[in-house]
Amino acid sequence: MNSIRLFNQIKTKKSFLCVGLDTEFEKIPEGVRSAEQPQLEFNREIIQATYSQVIAYKINTAFYEARGAEGWKEMEQTVALIRSVDPEIMIIADAKRGDIGNTSEMYAKAFLDRMGVDAVTVSPYMGYDTVNAFLKRNDKWVIILAVTSNKSAEDFQFLKVNDSEVTLYEKVLLTSQQWGTVDNIIYVAGATRPEQILQIRRHIPDHFLLVPGIGAQGGSLEDVAKHGINSRCGLIVNTSRAVIFADPSRNFARTAHMKAVELQQQMESILKNYKLI
Amino acid sequence: MNSIRLFNQIKTKKSFLCVGLDTEFEKIPEGVRSAEQPQLEFNREIIQATYSQVIAYKINTAFYEARGAEGWKEMEQTVALIRSVDPEIMIIADAKRGDIGNTSEMYAKAFLDRMGVDAVTVSPYMGYDTVNAFLKRNDKWVIILAVTSNKSAEDFQFLKVNDSEVTLYEKVLLTSQQWGTVDNIIYVAGATRPEQILQIRRHIPDHFLLVPGIGAQGGSLEDVAKHGINSRCGLIVNTSRAVIFADPSRNFARTAHMKAVELQQQMESILKNYKLI
Repeated sequence: MNSIRLFNQIKTKKSFLCVGLDTEFEKIPEGVRSAEQPQLEFNREIIQATYSQVIAYKINTAFYEARGAEGWKEMEQTVALIRSVDPEIMIIADAKRGDIGNTSEMYAKAFLDRMGVDAVTVSPYMGYDTVNAFLKRNDKWVIILAVTSNKSAEDFQFLKVNDSEVTLYEKVLLTSQQWGTVDNIIYVAGATRPEQILQIRRHIPDHFLLVPGIGAQGGSLEDVAKHGINSRCGLIVNTSRAVIFADPSRNFARTAHMKAVELQQQMESILKNYKLI
Repeated sequence: MNSIRLFNQIKTKKSFLCVGLDTEFEKIPEGVRSAEQPQLEFNREIIQATYSQVIAYKINTAFYEARGAEGWKEMEQTVALIRSVDPEIMIIADAKRGDIGNTSEMYAKAFLDRMGVDAVTVSPYMGYDTVNAFLKRNDKWVIILAVTSNKSAEDFQFLKVNDSEVTLYEKVLLTSQQWGTVDNIIYVAGATRPEQILQIRRHIPDHFLLVPGIGAQGGSLEDVAKHGINSRCGLIVNTSRAVIFADPSRNFARTAHMKAVELQQQMESILKNYKLI
């Protein structure tokens, strides 16, 4: 998938919604939790209920690893399931990996080749080596952390570097832009700091941004759009808990559907306002 | 395990060697590669051949994830195997994770609680949230990336921050020291840049350092010891490929044993020179 195909999907679905499958075992409603494959079954219902509203699913690997090999298997099966429901949907492994060259190659193999997702999130601390393996695959993406949505993002990401006004996250943007293109690099830009999204856009007007932090973490969709939207939308806005765990009862899928429709409709009116559809 | 117990093990074994189980499927000699559980069987022979010489094993998660759920299972079984052979050996999951609070908690659960390793490597880019979950477990460690052994470590780790002479990796040391103690934080300090190990010791004289980059990556044991050793040794020196894949033949375990003995003997004489044993 390249950025044109992604934008086409946005126009077709009138949405730039990504639903995060942060499928925490303990939060799965009882009737599903006792299933043989609880995470897969929960995801199946969520996917059926939301796939018409989303352009991407983000699979948070931690929640599956917490169940060991069985969780990993259900993560793989979730990817296959999404593909079978709608092959155009972007699948993101939110894995936040990052290592030396030969190890990064193994992570690329694990997620892009074997599991078959479209994109993997990567931490930039170790530099170019950490992303190179992901850029070598055609039609695949690496998603580099720039500004994350958590409070302690401030510990290091906002430090000024090299006796300048440039912060570390801006330096990450500036340096990593040389490594790839708008068709294989996306950046994480947390919705909890919309003013930074504006700043990010000054450096990278054209790249897609993966924006977590709407919903449970408190970010606002309008602020994100105001500062981050570009001529091909350029936004993949993620929400996880606020959709998938909006309803703790056995009706979770119906509620997730309603939440997704609500967000899709807000996004549709944003896309219309900006004359993108 | 705390730092005193770790130092006791170093004195007992006269070694500060960590062997990295970067068990790349394609590099497993043919007779073992065709086994039902190839990574586990390879590791079994390596562990039997080296456990008397090592104080730690470092499991590089990428090499197991590249084989999906089956690889993950063999990683779990490898941990159990090490425990059964010698329960005092420190087991490190070299996972380079790092995420927001609730996700970090899941990673801590996956590796420290469920898989039962002693320590997990973490990238500091997202700040305190990424390590907090790991620090909440008794007798467990988080290993924070400071200076990595790869070339592109220079892209960001060596940037000067806040109009000062302090580099990003030094800022990571200074800030993260407040989060934990010498009994639950270890730092990664690559052997390929021994002069930085000296600099690291200026900031954190007492913490243990996990030092990758000896062997295949070209770092020297003598330089590492000269700059990094402290009154409780303070070093866990890792080598992976140079031991486990030193011999591509079916005799790999015997060769690995010889390589481990060689390194242990060098370490014994270093420990004697510094009057630690």
